[in-house]
Amino acid sequence: MELRYLSRADVESLCISMADIIAVVEEGFRRKGMGETQMPPKIAIHSRPGEAFLHAMPAYVGGLDIAAIKWVGGNEENLKRGLPNITGLIVINDAETMVPLAIMDGSWITAMRTGAANAVAMKYLGPASADTVAVVGCGVQGRSNLLAMLTHYTGIARVQCYDVVPQALEAFVGEAETRYDGVEFVAAAGPRAAVEGADVVVTAGPSPKHPSPYLRADWLKQGAMAAPVDYMGAWDAQLAVEVEKLITDDHAQMDYYRSKGYFADIPRPYADLGEVVAGLKPGRECPEERTMSICMGIAVDDAVTAGLVYERACAAGVGAELPL
Amino acid sequence: MELRYLSRADVESLCISMADIIAVVEEGFRRKGMGETQMPPKIAIHSRPGEAFLHAMPAYVGGLDIAAIKWVGGNEENLKRGLPNITGLIVINDAETMVPLAIMDGSWITAMRTGAANAVAMKYLGPASADTVAVVGCGVQGRSNLLAMLTHYTGIARVQCYDVVPQALEAFVGEAETRYDGVEFVAAAGPRAAVEGADVVVTAGPSPKHPSPYLRADWLKQGAMAAPVDYMGAWDAQLAVEVEKLITDDHAQMDYYRSKGYFADIPRPYADLGEVVAGLKPGRECPEERTMSICMGIAVDDAVTAGLVYERACAAGVGAELPL
Repeated sequence: MELRYLSRADVESLCISMADIIAVVEEGFRRKGMGETQMPPKIAIHSRPGEAFLHAMPAYVGGLDIAAIKWVGGNEENLKRGLPNITGLIVINDAETMVPLAIMDGSWITAMRTGAANAVAMKYLGPASADTVAVVGCGVQGRSNLLAMLTHYTGIARVQCYDVVPQALEAFVGEAETRYDGVEFVAAAGPRAAVEGADVVVTAGPSPKHPSPYLRADWLKQGAMAAPVDYMGAWDAQLAVEVEKLITDDHAQMDYYRSKGYFADIPRPYADLGEVVAGLKPGRECPEERTMSICMGIAVDDAVTAGLVYERACAAGVGAELPL
Repeated sequence: MELRYLSRADVESLCISMADIIAVVEEGFRRKGMGETQMPPKIAIHSRPGEAFLHAMPAYVGGLDIAAIKWVGGNEENLKRGLPNITGLIVINDAETMVPLAIMDGSWITAMRTGAANAVAMKYLGPASADTVAVVGCGVQGRSNLLAMLTHYTGIARVQCYDVVPQALEAFVGEAETRYDGVEFVAAAGPRAAVEGADVVVTAGPSPKHPSPYLRADWLKQGAMAAPVDYMGAWDAQLAVEVEKLITDDHAQMDYYRSKGYFADIPRPYADLGEVVAGLKPGRECPEERTMSICMGIAVDDAVTAGLVYERACAAGVGAELPL
């Protein structure tokens, strides 16, 4: 028996488009909404006090018939050592025999699937079109969410960017200007200037357990959507109360994080994204609504994206064959 | 960043002795007893109805400072396809940075650590010495448990073997006679002949949820120990009630299996093996006691064994270096 190993470079070399990832992530949410997925609540070990963690995130996606696990870890001290904060591996198994088929680096996939999940949320809860959007927090997730927004909304003319670290903001804007033609990127002078006038606001800064929010709820305009991927680290919690529709990517996972101290003062979302995608509960119903989707990132997102990566890698003959 | 990949052949090529594995597994149980391990209850996905499964088994072992996960799956239909019933991978992470250090095949480790855990149980609950032992169920676990018994008890003169499948029994005895000099191996005519007179009885047959036990409680002699690794698939449940001391390797895991329908009519064990190894509860207290240890196999066993394998592989330069 052999299994395929895909390094981060292998995974990236396949040049899988964000559009393709959004499509499989949407299908994952549909299957989840239809009750065809299995995703036991993640389990964790903490080998050091503080924020260091390792999470086991298995999932089975019916229909696509993908069985996979992500084993992902992080230690915020890593950045001081010149190491990535988050690293992880994804294993894909044959869903019939359970034999492992492939092991792949999970870092590119984690970034891409998180952006893709937000794009799916925008499709169902965001405004029908977007001229101006905002990215607050200009790191890895800011980049993949920018790509996801530009993929989903083809009419974006202006992106208002902000980061508390001026160098990060400058680097982000410079890089984006080079990468995306025909879009104006603005380094906002402050958080308010970034958010005001935006049709969609992605916040992708740090995810502290007890946030000190610096975005006021009334800065989000009528008809706009807030898409925090920072566990509500930036927005005043009041916005989650005020919006017409608040959804999440998984109730059970949000409950887990609540038990860890996150999401205080955030009401229970009225639906999860899978229910909306599957048509069981409505998404946006009128142009004036303000909406919010809190996507924390779920194992189903990883499984479907890894399944796509595996399929493309086999077709392209990319990766190393290892004996089991 | 690089990580090391060890195939099953790589793992086996290190020729790590059962004695060394028993030693690290004992240390794992000691750490568990002292409350220095983290082992969240395993989580499962079932991509097919029936007995097919994939389990995520993470553990952190303090003191040894090992962070690892086993991702193990099985489908009983595999044997008909010429595939192993159980396959799995173990990932070891740097316990400080959480970066993955190594991926290795988990099948040899699973077999060896299960035998080793039983040897630890024998050290604390078995008779002080053993002349005659029994192996009922002559598959992979029968083999590794035989090795574990012969490693722990150096005075074994006779091994009484039994399997419901005559060919399996014959192959087991032939193989053991070739491998172990100076020990008599007897193919017992039936289960009673195998068990009677044995100082230690390992049962390693199938693990049905609703067993049809074929070993009577009164066949286990005074002063002997029963070590079922088959989730009590062979022994009359009455034996678990009668023995002076019943222990398990993990209460939480036994409770999980109870919720799945296993271990009906089995009383709650009075201790777990970690508590006994750590000296918090007594093991065997007199030669006449009959004892039983139900070891189901826990993630801590895998983690410490994988840690030993990784250390030896690095020292010997075995395995492939993969880019992360």
